[in-house]
Amino acid sequence: MASDMIVNHPEKALALLQADAEKILKLIKVQMDNLTMPQCPLYEEVLDTQMFGLSREIDFAVRLGLIEAIVGKEILDKLERELSALHDASLRK
Amino acid sequence: MASDMIVNHPEKALALLQADAEKILKLIKVQMDNLTMPQCPLYEEVLDTQMFGLSREIDFAVRLGLIEAIVGKEILDKLERELSALHDASLRK
Repeated sequence: MASDMIVNHPEKALALLQADAEKILKLIKVQMDNLTMPQCPLYEEVLDTQMFGLSREIDFAVRLGLIEAIVGKEILDKLERELSALHDASLRK
Repeated sequence: MASDMIVNHPEKALALLQADAEKILKLIKVQMDNLTMPQCPLYEEVLDTQMFGLSREIDFAVRLGLIEAIVGKEILDKLERELSALHDASLRK
């Protein structure tokens, strides 16, 4: 296993969390782009599950001291804003 | 933020994961001890959600190189065995 000296865990943790957040963002964009299509009934369930998973990863990284809680909160808040924009758009459809 | 030098991230990560696994184990034991009581209908849902959360933490720790995949798998497998024992016991009730 790479020793602590080589792997900068805080940096890598943040990069992994941002990449995971990006995947969720893509899921949201796909839904946004396909609003005219019949909505996959499970997409909210899928997004909720992914958001829960990411929140647990962020909580874990914060408890490990790898990222600051505020940084984790910003990652989630950004996604929550995108999610509510998607939700509003689907209601207006 | 504590620099990598002071915090042994691999050790702390494993300790956090084992502590989280222990919490789920306690949930399972509570159910096991209360089998005669009417089963809370949501307990399987709660346990599934907790297991999913833990699996995402483990996956994150493995991707970060903080624990070996096999170690993470053992943590989950142990809980899965306890869960199926609980499930069997509740069926025999």
